[in-house]
Amino acid sequence: MLSASFSATIRARVDDRPGAFADLARAVADAGGSLDAIDLVRVERGTKVRDVTVLAHDAEHITRIVEAVRAVEGVEVEHVSDRTFLMHLGGKIEVVPKTPLRTRDDLSMAYTPGVARISEAIAQDPQSVWNLTIKRNTVAVVTDGTAVLGLGDIGPEAALPVMEGKAMLFKEFAGVDAFPLCLATTDPDAIVAAVEAVAPVFGGVNLEDISAPRCFAIEARLRESLDIPVFHDDQHGTAIVVLAALLNALRVVGKRIDEVKVVVAGVGAAGTATTQILQAAGVQTVVGCDRRGALYAGRPDLDGVKAAYAQTTNPDREHGSVDDALAGADVFLGLSRPGAVSLDGIRTMREDAIVLAMANPTPEVQPEDLEGIAAVVATGRSDYPNQINNVLAFPGVFRGALDVRASEITEEMKIAAAHAIAGVVAPDELGPEYIVPSVFNREVVPAVAGAVAHAAELAGVARRSREPTPVE
Amino acid sequence: MLSASFSATIRARVDDRPGAFADLARAVADAGGSLDAIDLVRVERGTKVRDVTVLAHDAEHITRIVEAVRAVEGVEVEHVSDRTFLMHLGGKIEVVPKTPLRTRDDLSMAYTPGVARISEAIAQDPQSVWNLTIKRNTVAVVTDGTAVLGLGDIGPEAALPVMEGKAMLFKEFAGVDAFPLCLATTDPDAIVAAVEAVAPVFGGVNLEDISAPRCFAIEARLRESLDIPVFHDDQHGTAIVVLAALLNALRVVGKRIDEVKVVVAGVGAAGTATTQILQAAGVQTVVGCDRRGALYAGRPDLDGVKAAYAQTTNPDREHGSVDDALAGADVFLGLSRPGAVSLDGIRTMREDAIVLAMANPTPEVQPEDLEGIAAVVATGRSDYPNQINNVLAFPGVFRGALDVRASEITEEMKIAAAHAIAGVVAPDELGPEYIVPSVFNREVVPAVAGAVAHAAELAGVARRSREPTPVE
Repeated sequence: MLSASFSATIRARVDDRPGAFADLARAVADAGGSLDAIDLVRVERGTKVRDVTVLAHDAEHITRIVEAVRAVEGVEVEHVSDRTFLMHLGGKIEVVPKTPLRTRDDLSMAYTPGVARISEAIAQDPQSVWNLTIKRNTVAVVTDGTAVLGLGDIGPEAALPVMEGKAMLFKEFAGVDAFPLCLATTDPDAIVAAVEAVAPVFGGVNLEDISAPRCFAIEARLRESLDIPVFHDDQHGTAIVVLAALLNALRVVGKRIDEVKVVVAGVGAAGTATTQILQAAGVQTVVGCDRRGALYAGRPDLDGVKAAYAQTTNPDREHGSVDDALAGADVFLGLSRPGAVSLDGIRTMREDAIVLAMANPTPEVQPEDLEGIAAVVATGRSDYPNQINNVLAFPGVFRGALDVRASEITEEMKIAAAHAIAGVVAPDELGPEYIVPSVFNREVVPAVAGAVAHAAELAGVARRSREPTPVE
Repeated sequence: MLSASFSATIRARVDDRPGAFADLARAVADAGGSLDAIDLVRVERGTKVRDVTVLAHDAEHITRIVEAVRAVEGVEVEHVSDRTFLMHLGGKIEVVPKTPLRTRDDLSMAYTPGVARISEAIAQDPQSVWNLTIKRNTVAVVTDGTAVLGLGDIGPEAALPVMEGKAMLFKEFAGVDAFPLCLATTDPDAIVAAVEAVAPVFGGVNLEDISAPRCFAIEARLRESLDIPVFHDDQHGTAIVVLAALLNALRVVGKRIDEVKVVVAGVGAAGTATTQILQAAGVQTVVGCDRRGALYAGRPDLDGVKAAYAQTTNPDREHGSVDDALAGADVFLGLSRPGAVSLDGIRTMREDAIVLAMANPTPEVQPEDLEGIAAVVATGRSDYPNQINNVLAFPGVFRGALDVRASEITEEMKIAAAHAIAGVVAPDELGPEYIVPSVFNREVVPAVAGAVAHAAELAGVARRSREPTPVE
């Protein structure tokens, strides 16, 4: 699929001869690319310099398109800019003052001597840190870089662009200020200690891309020790959006949640948490599979987390591969890797199969290969329909939690978030290619935030009402 | 002194009778306050509602002024807003995307799937984290809240408004993105571990308001373990600006730096580092004093850092109080607390005495009390002339260090910064009330940054030239 994420802007000097630009356009098309923006940069004697943006399938495809353009007679390529790399130069977020510091008066209020009164006020009344500092609206996005997208253990520096992107999303979608903290340690004790150390500045902690099984203990320990929400998005964000998608997909095919069989490929952080939320929502039959196949009670090679998982799933103790488990299943949920399932396996599913192929950036199976095989298909990608993206959940979840100063994010709050997301799709809009709202649907965050805040109040973890703070 | 940092906006309903507003204005003046902005909010039958901003000396003075206004006939006070508190509601900084996320294309480049290519590029070439992330321009402002302004050990939450202010200054003055990290630990090992853990995201670390003597070991260990600049601003920022001020104050009074006697009150983080930079710049006679008086070699109660300090200072092994040490001294440098010196002590100084009274927020001695006693007076406050504020140093120091991707900040870089600050005041501008440039002088940061970057190159700690990064 052609994608802006694989696009380049080619600065080309094009002869004024009739048809030269048409030849360029033809070359792009013949190479399988698509023309996007075309801008005139300058006019020179007998030539025009244009910026031609092309969309490609992947990085190697960009190279082929550029070569094809270079080969056109009367066209000279001056420069090629990879748009995705350009966007990342110098990073994607910045830290800015909310009010300008232009005069001595400004300075004497925001900094010394005025700020001393604010510090004294907080020292006297520690809870006022929530009113008088950024804590009220700020979330730490914490990773150790061990399980980044589908790329694995690439380290904290390489994880940073992803965390910056997450911070952008927090701000753009929910007005939450988020700051990335990529830790130079993979030791659970050191990660817990670092997050505990920085906690005073933050109203919540979004753990991200920390590999299983370490992520379970890290999250559990931080939830215990901190009085602010700690939310491992790979687990709970994914669980929320998958449940939301499944609720609506089942409506599309007219099946009941307590009657379906779900096969989960990938029993890591996301697979474990998602299975839990699906069961809490009524799914009776889940078969989880790792690279060695179905998890069943008593499988000899299972560690603690997986052994516990096997105890509560796979009631028929099925053995075999993912493909084997899919025979007669209703839902395939991929939280694994490209190729984790075969088309032949999916063909053995029950009628009106639902395929949620969430591997990032490349799904377990390509949606274009599933036409006529599955009734509803969704992926995690922004460039296909039915994007089951955590962006639908985490901004609103934290918005709601911060709004009521929640001390934690409970199971009830997550389930409320899933129902809120599903509910944004109106019954008359619902269809095979529209089971989840667009991430750009502005109704999503308020719906999720409201549901989460309400659930927090019911669960007794809210520390303030949703009324606006009175000005002092 | 009347200050915006102690100001309030009084919303008052004022009768339309002739002279009512004049009575209000008179009441403010009689109470010792000063009228600032006067805004009309709305007109009602027979009254006008106005926002009247008044400047006061301190918080208690605001209360007295408001009471005086309430007592005026025909004036009803609806509401009083403390401007400094208002500015702090919800914090002073935010984290914002540099580019909007409005379309699927934006999302597919800034986040998945496009961001995966950026992460892969950094994983393959770790140095590219400097080009493709915020690391290039981002500094951590780290404190444990143990020595905040003049307030002492008030804890990490109460320190946060100060660190937010610092982050504002970094951005406003030098375009540096800074984020506050207020640590919930005072254990040096835990502080070092936490800063090492978060280091991948940052191009530099500004340590702030960490009490002595712990700050010395913490900085030394982090400088050793990290490959980015670690700069304890209370030490080195203060040292730089004090040296800059002293260089110009000596020009004003026509004394040579190698002939003056300097008495330093306060031998904590700032006093120790400032003494070192003054000695490096040529001062021969420094007498440092703590609460027990002058430090001299062999004083029995001195710990390691202070014992070392005594070895290299106080050549005549003077004993006695700060006041005693001031007899015949040329420079009083206060890095201590209000009242650390007496006016009688200052009266015993040599002619053309220089008094740098830097305690925050209240100086060791009030400038208004020094008229006719000292030739040049400076403080750390923004509401007096000659503000010797670290704001003159740290933004440019980090700007210069980041511009050349410095691995550390050397002594040469600090001394270069001091000369650059002093040099911004032109000879014909120099005078007793103008020894340091205004913190709003836009020449300061480029001058400091350029000098620091150049010194880094000479010292061999620069990792790139100052040429702009070519677009990829």
